[in-house]
Parts: sequence; structure tokens; C-alpha cells
Amino acid sequence: MTKVGIIGATGYAGAELVRILCDHPQIKLTILSSRQYVDVKFEKIYPSMTNVTDLVCEELSIDKMCEKADVVFIALPHKLSMKFVPELLARGKRVIDLSADFRFKDAKTYEAFYQSHTAKELLEISVYGLSEIYFEQIKNATLVGTPGCYPTSVLLPLVPLLKSNLIDVNTIVADSKSGVSGAGRSLSLTTHFCEVNESLKAYKIAEHRHNPEMEMVLSLEAGRPVKVTFVPHLVPMTRGILTTIYSNLMEKTSFEEIKNCLTSFYSQRPFIRIFPADRQPDTRYVRGTNFCDIGIKVDERNNRLILISAIDNLVKGAAGQAVQNMNIMFGFDEVAGLSAAPFPV
Amino acid sequence: MTKVGIIGATGYAGAELVRILCDHPQIKLTILSSRQYVDVKFEKIYPSMTNVTDLVCEELSIDKMCEKADVVFIALPHKLSMKFVPELLARGKRVIDLSADFRFKDAKTYEAFYQSHTAKELLEISVYGLSEIYFEQIKNATLVGTPGCYPTSVLLPLVPLLKSNLIDVNTIVADSKSGVSGAGRSLSLTTHFCEVNESLKAYKIAEHRHNPEMEMVLSLEAGRPVKVTFVPHLVPMTRGILTTIYSNLMEKTSFEEIKNCLTSFYSQRPFIRIFPADRQPDTRYVRGTNFCDIGIKVDERNNRLILISAIDNLVKGAAGQAVQNMNIMFGFDEVAGLSAAPFPV
Amino acid sequence: MTKVGIIGATGYAGAELVRILCDHPQIKLTILSSRQYVDVKFEKIYPSMTNVTDLVCEELSIDKMCEKADVVFIALPHKLSMKFVPELLARGKRVIDLSADFRFKDAKTYEAFYQSHTAKELLEISVYGLSEIYFEQIKNATLVGTPGCYPTSVLLPLVPLLKSNLIDVNTIVADSKSGVSGAGRSLSLTTHFCEVNESLKAYKIAEHRHNPEMEMVLSLEAGRPVKVTFVPHLVPMTRGILTTIYSNLMEKTSFEEIKNCLTSFYSQRPFIRIFPADRQPDTRYVRGTNFCDIGIKVDERNNRLILISAIDNLVKGAAGQAVQNMNIMFGFDEVAGLSAAPFPV
Amino acid sequence: MTKVGIIGATGYAGAELVRILCDHPQIKLTILSSRQYVDVKFEKIYPSMTNVTDLVCEELSIDKMCEKADVVFIALPHKLSMKFVPELLARGKRVIDLSADFRFKDAKTYEAFYQSHTAKELLEISVYGLSEIYFEQIKNATLVGTPGCYPTSVLLPLVPLLKSNLIDVNTIVADSKSGVSGAGRSLSLTTHFCEVNESLKAYKIAEHRHNPEMEMVLSLEAGRPVKVTFVPHLVPMTRGILTTIYSNLMEKTSFEEIKNCLTSFYSQRPFIRIFPADRQPDTRYVRGTNFCDIGIKVDERNNRLILISAIDNLVKGAAGQAVQNMNIMFGFDEVAGLSAAPFPV
Repeated sequence: MTKVGIIGATGYAGAELVRILCDHPQIKLTILSSRQYVDVKFEKIYPSMTNVTDLVCEELSIDKMCEKADVVFIALPHKLSMKFVPELLARGKRVIDLSADFRFKDAKTYEAFYQSHTAKELLEISVYGLSEIYFEQIKNATLVGTPGCYPTSVLLPLVPLLKSNLIDVNTIVADSKSGVSGAGRSLSLTTHFCEVNESLKAYKIAEHRHNPEMEMVLSLEAGRPVKVTFVPHLVPMTRGILTTIYSNLMEKTSFEEIKNCLTSFYSQRPFIRIFPADRQPDTRYVRGTNFCDIGIKVDERNNRLILISAIDNLVKGAAGQAVQNMNIMFGFDEVAGLSAAPFPV
Repeated sequence: MTKVGIIGATGYAGAELVRILCDHPQIKLTILSSRQYVDVKFEKIYPSMTNVTDLVCEELSIDKMCEKADVVFIALPHKLSMKFVPELLARGKRVIDLSADFRFKDAKTYEAFYQSHTAKELLEISVYGLSEIYFEQIKNATLVGTPGCYPTSVLLPLVPLLKSNLIDVNTIVADSKSGVSGAGRSLSLTTHFCEVNESLKAYKIAEHRHNPEMEMVLSLEAGRPVKVTFVPHLVPMTRGILTTIYSNLMEKTSFEEIKNCLTSFYSQRPFIRIFPADRQPDTRYVRGTNFCDIGIKVDERNNRLILISAIDNLVKGAAGQAVQNMNIMFGFDEVAGLSAAPFPV
Repeated sequence: MTKVGIIGATGYAGAELVRILCDHPQIKLTILSSRQYVDVKFEKIYPSMTNVTDLVCEELSIDKMCEKADVVFIALPHKLSMKFVPELLARGKRVIDLSADFRFKDAKTYEAFYQSHTAKELLEISVYGLSEIYFEQIKNATLVGTPGCYPTSVLLPLVPLLKSNLIDVNTIVADSKSGVSGAGRSLSLTTHFCEVNESLKAYKIAEHRHNPEMEMVLSLEAGRPVKVTFVPHLVPMTRGILTTIYSNLMEKTSFEEIKNCLTSFYSQRPFIRIFPADRQPDTRYVRGTNFCDIGIKVDERNNRLILISAIDNLVKGAAGQAVQNMNIMFGFDEVAGLSAAPFPV
Repeated sequence: MTKVGIIGATGYAGAELVRILCDHPQIKLTILSSRQYVDVKFEKIYPSMTNVTDLVCEELSIDKMCEKADVVFIALPHKLSMKFVPELLARGKRVIDLSADFRFKDAKTYEAFYQSHTAKELLEISVYGLSEIYFEQIKNATLVGTPGCYPTSVLLPLVPLLKSNLIDVNTIVADSKSGVSGAGRSLSLTTHFCEVNESLKAYKIAEHRHNPEMEMVLSLEAGRPVKVTFVPHLVPMTRGILTTIYSNLMEKTSFEEIKNCLTSFYSQRPFIRIFPADRQPDTRYVRGTNFCDIGIKVDERNNRLILISAIDNLVKGAAGQAVQNMNIMFGFDEVAGLSAAPFPV
């Protein structure tokens, strides 16, 4: 049975990895590291896990991690991840990183929006872990950079349409709305209950660092430069991202044509649900799941296409997609550990 | 002292009128009608008003309404309003209607999106009650059609820029997010707590009937046809609308130029707050107030302008703007009854 | 493979049954009935279930139900259930009912708080489905009445202590706080988002019909009459019940003695988690799970014991406990279908 | 016009004072101090106040405070307050303190639950600012210690009944449920949105330091020792406390007798609303107001009285009661600045 370790297990993405991996039928979660909670039982930090896991968080030791794990998930903040990845790879481990450190092919873009990169040589071998798009490359990857939550919600609806040249690449606007867990477990006034509850606001308007990430992939897949005006918003709920994407159509195109383009593109992928004309995505429908739901509306009056995607930012937007990538890398069933039915409410 | 009556006092907009008018220093609220709660004390329906008002809801009688009130607010659903307005006007009352019945100059547009209009002759004399834009006409109006909540949030930031020809009228997208009180107090699965909580979705995508309303006013003010792709979303909070508006700039324009255009246009209007570059609107900042906050961001990379507006849908989006219009009509201080300081949280 | 049918599959408890049973490894969900949604695909009513189940809701036919199912869950409102149970039993089916119809041994108590009972003869064979307490009887039951959500949260902490004669039966107060899904999916002003959000209130104070249910079981287990002052409250969240129970101790008793009593009583039961002194239950820790968490505090100054229990009202308080009972009845692993790890947030 | 200063204006209680005092007709708010935001405009910290106040937060200078203010509100954390009060009093200022520093007559009780007291000599002259109970003493007070939020919600319903000897003082249990703003604006995991949302838990069970405060006042008013088992809970909402109080009745007593006792006791006090038998308090009804609503239920079966009180923890539980006390001290209308009608939702 494949043995799995997690570096950075106590943030929300790390804890979500623990949740999913505890139920995964083909692996065994063997080791957790945490900077903040050394020698603390995981169930003490997350009492929901009482009687579910006995694992104790340890101080990170690469030796011990390599001894106990065949594959390592890293859920550390950006910048920290790249310190540990080279050695893990050198010791023959496969690594699935959830930070931004290994998402970019081009170190310059990364460095413009994050900080200087200390493991640039690995960017070449790293695979961008957008599972449905880079499925084939992920199979053999030793290092996967799991996409950001917002890019996942923007890329999955857009890539097939760009590849089919259905939309005008100069007109794309992505208006995203996210639950608060996307901001992580660290304390800040922004995530204080009283500041978020009964509140709604945009932030990092046209300046979010997920913007270059989505443009990199869109440009690559479209075969020419694609720009996106991207505005994230913070919504008073815990989980979920809803992204509303606006773009002009190249020519008059029907709902059915758009739907067929998406449906055929994703016909083999179990987590993409293309909705019929009378149904629209809701973050509630994907809560706790690895689904990405996509809704379509053609605004004929303005020859504009409106795409709406919904994901759970902690699952398809982070830990779930990371596990999906592990499944692909190790030849497991793609949905292993990720197939629990969603809650009605 | 001016005497005021409300027809339809027990829906959310009606109850918000009661709240505001109970505190208004220059009027006396004398009569409330309700279809659903005849002969019931208002405080029984809204126990928050215990000891605040002794008014009892009555069955609607135009005679009694005219006897007791100098000015009548109507907070009935669309279609019902136009049945009562003609007689109220005939008896010399001034009427402030919160439904869509008297917002449109053109009966055809109304009839295309609502139903047949039975008081078309009054559309000519009715004034569209967007207080800051039609201030002069409102002064002498006998009949005011209070704007919809979404149009208010879209029009206030856009009108000055369109009049100054700063933005490309063919590129306007308005992405609105609304709290649940906008859907009113009527029961529906859409407003059931468990269906809204931890949920986020778009609805009536590019098909909402506030869309023609905003286009009518924008076209009029711009002096040429303006189209808007408008998508409303439902957010798990009670009050507030945040609207994010995207449009291409006619030419390179700075933040300061946009800000100056808005600031000078609204320099005499107390309820419009144009935010500096380091501050962005949040529905929480306007909760319970008649303010419309406007934030500005120039997306230079894409030569696109992003405007963000925030209002309380029940105040500036309904009852508050209606009272503001009364203040203008009767020569009261524009902020009378509407000047309470907002809550910190 | 055991075949399972659900009567009343589209309310929240029914839909939660669908969710759990879709993932259950030892049964096959074969038939759903619904009064409201005849011939509608389940995923159309609950779009979260898109691609998860293909089942279509049918009009209830006892013939068809008996043909397709070995065991039948009934998630109908009180009173409707007893119309169908006799025939299902007569045809040899085992029935797990979620209504109050088969919870009471004594028809008189039922009739005092609900309505007249039309299948009294079955009360004798019916087993009260509080899984941990009536485990042995449930094994061979043909008819199980699943406990109410509030009684479950009150009984599980109290029964062992009453049996050990540790608390004064004349001093029990149970203060329960429930999420809104407990009120079901039916429309009412009480469950309208704007009426619940940012709201907190008690209801049916000392008059709730779960009160006689909990007293019946407590009296039976204590071997003498036990009365409870029970006050339920409605809290702005979707799922979860937290119950705080106050009672005088018979004599000075330590935290450890209380804990030992509970721990030893439940040592073989996988869903009861007795918390240590430094941890207290939170509905968030049991969200989506079948756990009942119990916290203990001895108020030495007043010789009073404070017990706190947390359950998910739709799982351990309804559908989950019903499935647990099926597992017990059919000799499946007690946790089958109910073992998914809880969410960190 | 009376000039008012606030020390500690940027926490939630301080900011609520700013809100209320900005609208107060008989005073002028002249000076704000803040440790954290020296020389920052108040509207920058609370953008809701844009265009409402131009005040700038200053570093605390007692000289300047005394020069600019006739009365000083202190909204600092416990312990800090007592450092400044002696000098303010020495300079002839009247002081209304919102911390616990001047609530206790007995320094020992304070020191047992807080820390050592450095201004004990002032405890004798300090008046406990529970406005309705200590109205006469407050009139001439130079120093008022504003009650804690929980004690306010417990004391107002209980004091009249204890004075009338209607309830058994050995049986009192107070189960309080509070919104999150009661925990203040300081950052902690406990107030992180994702940890509170969809969550419900008890905390500091029978150990909260508001417990001795309520017992002190109850004992004083009852004329003999009164003990309370007090359990606070945290609820996912911003504002509001609902307290459910259980106690045995001394003898059979009717709803009307209880109601008359409360109604006559509070007949001259504008902020206490005693509800009729068919209406129960809801925190939503008092949101943003200085009301304390009280509901009554006699549990005849158990000869137990259930009292339910609702307040807004930031208003009647803190800033509002402090302003009410100022009104009493300065001979203003008791409701000045506190009479805005509540929101319907």
C-alpha cells in the first residue's frame, strides 16, 4: 500500500488533505509535519478528527519523511515549499505541492508576483496539476504544482472554448466570489467573523497573483497571448468559489454548440459536470466534493458568452485536486477517496 | 407637519419605510395598510417595533388613506400599484411608488418585461426617482417611480462617466451580488435558510427585468443606445448589493480623472461617497444607510475600467431612496430621517 | 446485496438518506418515492447529486416498493407514516421509520401530542431506535421508530448517568440549540433566510413534543418517573444540535467519575465520543457525521453537573441513526456508510 | 453643549460609542484616543464612517483629554482602565468606564478573577451602571462601571423577581448565547470566520468571570447569597445575546403574576420591554438598539420559571448602556441618542 506524508498538515488545505487521505482506499497516511504544532495529536488541533486518526504532528525531518512516505504532499505557504522539494526529489520521492512555487514554467513571472525562486531548475520538470487538462503529463510526473483555487475555476470552463477558438481572447473578464477558507487559517482582520459576516467586497482588484497564473495557462492552451481582467470577491461563507466569466463570442454561437464543446472535451473526466440550460451552478452543490460544475448562458443581445463555474476551494481548488493528481500519478482510480456523495444542504 | 401613509407596509420594503419614517423629524406617519394583516398591530408583525409605534395595519381604503395622508408611499408588488395611483393623484395626493409600475417612460418596455399597463397616461408625468440624477424633476413631481435596487447600484457609478463619454458603451458588464432581503418576505425555496446559507449562485442570467430599466436610463443619459450584460447573484447575507462593473475606456484614463469626474458630478449630493484609491466598498459599510459607496480601479493592462458600488438594497435600493425623494419633493433637508451613523459591525 | 427503498425521499431527512445510502458498500438503493416530485429525477431536485445517482422519484406504490426493496425507510411527516407501515410489515419487509409514529410504547402519550393513532397494535413490536441504548432489541426488529433529533442529543448523555443513579431526576433542564434544517424543507416564515440570519430565539418553550419522548425513555431507563424542562432554540446555521444539560448531582462526584461512567457504558459503540476535560463539543466537529460528542463539566460550587452534547441533526439526529439501525438489523458493520472523516471546517 | 471624549475608540465597543455619540443631540464628540491607530482618521479604520465624522485618533494624553472633554468614556481592556481613571477624576471629569475595573465593590472578588487592582480606593465611589436598577445612584455618580454584557442580560430579568422573593435562589441556571462581537476585535482563532460559521459551542463553562459579577449584584439585591450556574455559548452571528434563565418558583405562580412583577418594576424605564405570553424575544428584535426584551414562561409541570432576555451586546450590553448612563448623569432625556427605530431585518 502506498505510504503518504504531508508537510504542513494543520492549515486548512493540509487538514483537508488529512480528511481525504484518511478515507482513501489505496494509500496509508503515515506521517504529518507541522511547524506550529510539534508533538501535538492531530485530533487535538481538529477535534472533529477525534477517534478518526491517531496521527501526531511532528517537526519536519526530511529523513523521517522519506523513510515513512512514498509520496509527499506539501501544503506550506509559498516560498517555504521550494526549500524542501529538491531534496525530496533527490531521494526519489514524488511530490505534490499545493503552493505556487512550482506552478510556473517561467521563473520570471513567478518572481514578479511572489519572490525570488531558489529551485528554478525544477520548474522545467514540474507539471501544472490541472488534472483534466494535463492528465497525460501528470501520469509520469515526479513533481506536480497544484493550481490555485481561482485559476482552477477560471481555466476549466475556458480552456476547451479557447482551444476551439470560440471566444474573443481580448474580452475576457472573470468575476470570482470566494468563501473565507480560501484565505487560510492564519489570523487577520480580513477573516475575523464580524468583519466578514454580512459583508461583501472585492479585493486585490485586477492585481491578484492568480491573474498571471491563469493567463499563463490560457495563453499556452490558446496558442497566443490571452489577458484576463480578474476580480476576486470575499463572501460570507466558509467554502466555495463561484466564478462568472464574460467574453465576446467570435461569431454567433448557440448554447448547444458551447455545451457540446465542453461536454465532448470532458467526456472522460469524472469531476466535470456541464449543466443543462435550466440548471446553474451553486457552490452548495459542490461543497465538500471534487466536482467543478459549469453553467452556460449565451447573451445573444450582446453576442457575449457567460460561463459560470463552481468549485469547493479546499477540494477541487486545493486538497482534492492534489489527491486526484496522486491518483493519476499512481494509476489509482481517478475518483479514489473523492467519491463521497455531496450533502443535500 | 406633513402626514404620511404607506400602502403595503408589511413587506420588507414597507417595513423599512415604517422604520425610517418613525424617526423622521418633519413628518408624521399616520396610516398603514396591509392586505395580509388587516387589524393587526404593526409591532405584532415586527416585534422589533414594540413600544416604537402603535400603528395598526388596516385594510386599504383610498378614502381613509386620502383623509389621513398628504403623501402616500406604495410598497406593493408590481401590477397592484397602478390600480391605486390614478385615484390618489386625482385626489391631489403626491405618490411615491416603490414598484416598477411607474419607472418606465415607455409602456412597451414595461409590458414586455412585466404585464399590461393599466395607467399608461401617468407614465408621462411620472418621474424616475434616482434622486441624484433627477433631483430637479423630483422637486415638483406628483408621482415618483422609485428605481429598482440593482439599477440604482449600476446607474449611480455609470451615469457621470457616460455623460463625460469616458467609457465604451458597447462593453459594459455589470456583475451584481445581492443579499436575500431583495427577494422580499414572500416564501419560496430560494429564500429558505438552508438553501441560501453557505450557497452562492447566479440567477436570471442576462434575463433579469432590471436589465431594461438600467439600459433605458443609461441610453437616455448617454444620448445613444447603451446595452448592459447584467448578471445578478444571490449571497448568504440579509442586506446589501455589491455591483462590479466592467467596461473598456475610450482612451487611456487615470484613476484621478475618473475620480474627479464622479466627485465633481456628485459634489452637492450627500449620499454618494467616492472612495480613494486605497479603499474599496463593502456592503457592510453601507448597511442600514442611504449611502451609495463607489470604488474605482483602472485595469491599465487591459485599458478597462472597474467600478464597484455598494448600497443597502432596502435603503438606497428602496425605502431610503423613496424617503430621500419625499425630502426633495417637500423641500425638507435631503438627509432628514436618513442620517443615522452606520454600525461599525 | 440488500435492496433499499425510501418513501419520502425529497425532504431533508430523505435526501440525507439518499446521500448516505448512495455510498453504502453493502446495500443498493433501488427506489425512491415522493409525493411532490413524481417522475422527476432526484438530481433535478438536488443538483448536488448530478452524476451521482440516476434514480427518479416515483409516486408511492406499495406493490412496487415491496417488489424492489428488502428494507424500507420512511421519511414522511408524522401521521402519514402509519398509513403505510402495516402493509409493508404484512408483506414481510423490515421498516425503519423516521417519523414520531412508532417511537412511543403508549398510544395515549402519542395521541396527546400528535394525533390519533391508526396502527396502535404495532407499537408493541416497534423498537425505539436509539442505537446505542437499544442495540440488542434493534438487531431483531422488524419495525424501528427512529428517535427525534432533540431526544437523541438529550438521551445519550443522560441515560448512563441515570442508570448509575448519579443525578437528581427532579432537577434536569435541557437547553437545546438547533440549526435550521431541523425544521425541514417546507416553507415557513420561521425558516426564511432573513428571519433566521443574525437571529436567535427560543420556541415552543417547555411545550415541544419531543419533551414527552425524552421523558418516556429516561423514565424507563431510570426505573422511575423523570421530568425534564426542555427549551429548544433556533440558531442561524444549517446543521447541528448542541444541547446543554443541567442537573444536580446526588452527591459530590468528580469529572473522572462522570467520564468513567460514560466511557465504560459506551466502550463498544463507535459513534459516541466522550471528550476529555480540556475539550468541549462543537456542532462543527460532528457536521456531516454520525458522531455524538459529549462534554462534561462539574460545577462544584453548586454541586451541579453540566453535560454538553453535539450531533448533526440530519445524521445522528435522523438519517444517519436510521442507517446505523439498518446496519445493526442486517448484521452489517455498524459504521458502514457512516465512516467518512469529518470536515476540518 | 457637553463635550465628550473616548479613550480606546477603535475596538468594537469604542466604535459603537462613536456611532451613538455622533448622533447624540445634546453632546459633541470632541476627541478620540487609540493605542493602535495614532494619527489615523477614524473613517480610515471604519470606512462606514466616511463623511460621518472627521475625527482623527490620537495618542492618549490626559492633558488633552481633560482640555477637550467634560465627560470621558473608557473602552479599554480590563486593567488598563484603572491606570487613567484616578487622574481624570482628580481633574474633575466624570468617567464612564466600560471595562470590569470599576464594577466590583469588593477588590478581592475583582482580584480573584482579573488581576491586582491599583485604584481600590475608587471602588467605593464607583457606581455599578446597570441603568434601570441603579438609576438614582447613577444620577450623581462621578465614576460609573458599565456592567458586562452577560450580567446585563441576566440581571435585568432576575432582580425584580428576587426582590419580590418569587424564585428559589439555589436553583438558578443561566444559559447564555452570544454573537461574536462580544469577543472584541482582537484576533484569535476563536473569532476566525471559518471556526465560528456553522458552529455552536459552550466555553468557559461555569468559569466565566462574568459569573461573580452577576452573583454580586443578585446577592446584594436579594439580600442574601445567590449563586448562578452560568454557561456562555458562542453563536455564528455578529451581535446579540439571548439568555435563557431557569429557576424553581417558591410557590405556584402564574404568568400574569410574573409579568406584573416585571412590568410594574420597570414601568418608568423606556428600554425594558416585557413581552406578552404569545411573543418571545429574539436577538434580531433588539439588534442595534438599547432595548432589553424579556419573555416569560411558567413550566407548571416542574414548577419552574423560564425567563428569556435579549439584548444587543454592543448596545445595551456595552456602549448603549454607557450612553444611557451619561444621559442619566447629565440630566438628558434617558433615550437621547438611543431612540432610532430597529431594523425589520
